[in-house]
Amino acid sequence: MDFDALFNAQLDQLKQDGNYRYFADLERACGKFPKAASHFEDGKRDVTVWCSNDYLGMGQHPKVVDAMCEAVRRTGTGAGGTRNISGTNHDHLLLEAELADLHGKEAALLFTSGYVSNWAALSTLGSRLKDCVILSDAGNHASMIEGIRHSRATKVIWKHNDVADLEAKLAALPADVPKIVAFESVYSMDGDIAPIEAIVDVAEKYGAMTYLDEVHGVGLYGARGGGVSERDGVADRITLIEGTLGKAFGVVGGYITGSAAMCDFIRSFASGFIFTTALPPAVAAAARASIVHLKNSDAERLQQRRQVARLRAELDKAGIPHLENDSHIVPVMIKDPVKCRMLADYLMTEWNIYVQPINYPTVPKGTERLRFTPSPLHTDEDIEHLMMALRTLWRQCAMSRAVA
Amino acid sequence: MDFDALFNAQLDQLKQDGNYRYFADLERACGKFPKAASHFEDGKRDVTVWCSNDYLGMGQHPKVVDAMCEAVRRTGTGAGGTRNISGTNHDHLLLEAELADLHGKEAALLFTSGYVSNWAALSTLGSRLKDCVILSDAGNHASMIEGIRHSRATKVIWKHNDVADLEAKLAALPADVPKIVAFESVYSMDGDIAPIEAIVDVAEKYGAMTYLDEVHGVGLYGARGGGVSERDGVADRITLIEGTLGKAFGVVGGYITGSAAMCDFIRSFASGFIFTTALPPAVAAAARASIVHLKNSDAERLQQRRQVARLRAELDKAGIPHLENDSHIVPVMIKDPVKCRMLADYLMTEWNIYVQPINYPTVPKGTERLRFTPSPLHTDEDIEHLMMALRTLWRQCAMSRAVA
Repeated sequence: MDFDALFNAQLDQLKQDGNYRYFADLERACGKFPKAASHFEDGKRDVTVWCSNDYLGMGQHPKVVDAMCEAVRRTGTGAGGTRNISGTNHDHLLLEAELADLHGKEAALLFTSGYVSNWAALSTLGSRLKDCVILSDAGNHASMIEGIRHSRATKVIWKHNDVADLEAKLAALPADVPKIVAFESVYSMDGDIAPIEAIVDVAEKYGAMTYLDEVHGVGLYGARGGGVSERDGVADRITLIEGTLGKAFGVVGGYITGSAAMCDFIRSFASGFIFTTALPPAVAAAARASIVHLKNSDAERLQQRRQVARLRAELDKAGIPHLENDSHIVPVMIKDPVKCRMLADYLMTEWNIYVQPINYPTVPKGTERLRFTPSPLHTDEDIEHLMMALRTLWRQCAMSRAVA
Repeated sequence: MDFDALFNAQLDQLKQDGNYRYFADLERACGKFPKAASHFEDGKRDVTVWCSNDYLGMGQHPKVVDAMCEAVRRTGTGAGGTRNISGTNHDHLLLEAELADLHGKEAALLFTSGYVSNWAALSTLGSRLKDCVILSDAGNHASMIEGIRHSRATKVIWKHNDVADLEAKLAALPADVPKIVAFESVYSMDGDIAPIEAIVDVAEKYGAMTYLDEVHGVGLYGARGGGVSERDGVADRITLIEGTLGKAFGVVGGYITGSAAMCDFIRSFASGFIFTTALPPAVAAAARASIVHLKNSDAERLQQRRQVARLRAELDKAGIPHLENDSHIVPVMIKDPVKCRMLADYLMTEWNIYVQPINYPTVPKGTERLRFTPSPLHTDEDIEHLMMALRTLWRQCAMSRAVA
């Protein structure tokens, strides 16, 4: 059987639909973020990265870089095993204690990624709690969707951020089955923020557990970077808070926090936790340094907010439509995969501005966008340069300014 | 609803069965492997680690340590995004080229772990190839099982390493459906090795694709560390070779290699690849340094083989039964979870020897074992020390020497 022909047929379809993905080939340069070198066919040159999830530039913070190098020299480059079989290092335990403290929980559990933490935690809870029903926000991330699917628990989807719909769906379920309300604080592609307190109110009313994905919130919101749930003063009412070390904290890895019994339960039964090599201790050490710094420093968050507001104001002034939201994510809607790529290519080629076109399956078809994430390290000049490019582009393309 | 009570009920059952897991709390010490500090209630002291999957000690190799630190200082601590959205770094591409070359394939694709590479690749192939049937060796790893389960493709289990059974099952399937024969080279817990060539012969006869997990083979077998498939001269006949950067290569991460079309297909459709932050460029740089070293150096492999043979000979001399196999894995069967933990605790407490008791679900119930993995860095004195402990233990416990 010609398997390559089968693969190519589906790839050709992707290309035809404009959804085939071309990755930029970058060289991050520690100390120069948001600048990075980008490889092109005719050589490499510096570009300004406008779409990174290293939201605060912590991936190049001297404390984080030093912590990682120190730990590599002290412990080596890997953990050497699964957490159970020789892979648990003291750096992992220190990080888990730090994460539990960050969210005011009894315990925390590390995973190799945020994706795996959602997938493993939800598939374990959904499959091992008898008759469990998972009520999932319609906008939830792929990792949550896959975890719920894998659990084979009953799934009920409620309208995105719609508390009344959630309540109607909770009310329709039998009182005595375990229920999990799964949602995110900041939705990554639209940048909108969940009404966490109202969701928790309703969940508590019906005896449901709450599962909150804070991957786009941790480090960025709350006085200590505990996320939107900290900012809103409701973290103590959430059953499980999930987060990442790979975005605002600038490293890699995922985690959950919650009661000691729950973390122990997932530790003991989750296939995706048990059967995988632990993160390098040096990754844990770097992440911990980043968390500790952001617990004690507001400067990065404040400067990020300033630059986000500045970019939004400039876009408004130029009449370039962008999705309104209360987060740090600035989506400029293009609504066509081919046009979206064309605009991104133009920004890269003519202006050395790198913003990845966001297409299906990351966003629904027809909602393709350029997604800007201003960091505290983007200067006013960077913003002015981006705006010059966008103004020129909008004029040249004569694109509708009312597109969004 | 009292969720903690539900969690605790299942944890109590685990404890009652002897399957509850206690993690060692280690501090790896770069340059001292296989020695590590272990934390106990009354302080910490040095132990000899006998169960690491850092099989060759590459996690502390100066070239690997230097490569990681150099790349952290050059690129920072994280990738800053998914591979599609600003997370692809040149170090990832260099590593992928190195991996393709290692296995003599057109292309390679990195994942955050070996677990994710198996899960994502098999679930994508199984779900997107219409009417696909996956023929899975009965001994396959949890990550493959979960990937196949998640794909919802038809699954046919063939008897472990039994080519005749595989052929019978292939022959019973319609000729025109896509078939994937999924198996491992070295099975981690028994240490037995698959008859790869015979499996490939049969798979080719029935037009099936072959999916080979080499995670316990890469770095360790073959003239360049390409795994058992290199050693047996059949790598070019395998459709997809999957491997890890977290065992013999001493870092963390997983990958697949194969045709450019297949890697592009999985890159384009696998949820577990698309929706996750890329590995830090520094991890990629460290892994590449390790692979390049082991492509050009046989010293580690030869010394490992010597120490494995030495331990086996000493166990035979002492009349301590161990599973026969042709790999580097030396399982001493205990066949009871409580006894297994008791022996491991005794070795740790009285002898400062750390070998994790292996219990369900890592192995079937009733096949609990101590699994020793001698490395090139375990000295003859380390082996003699282990043997003194085991001889004493076997005498004291008066355990049956014919247990296996």
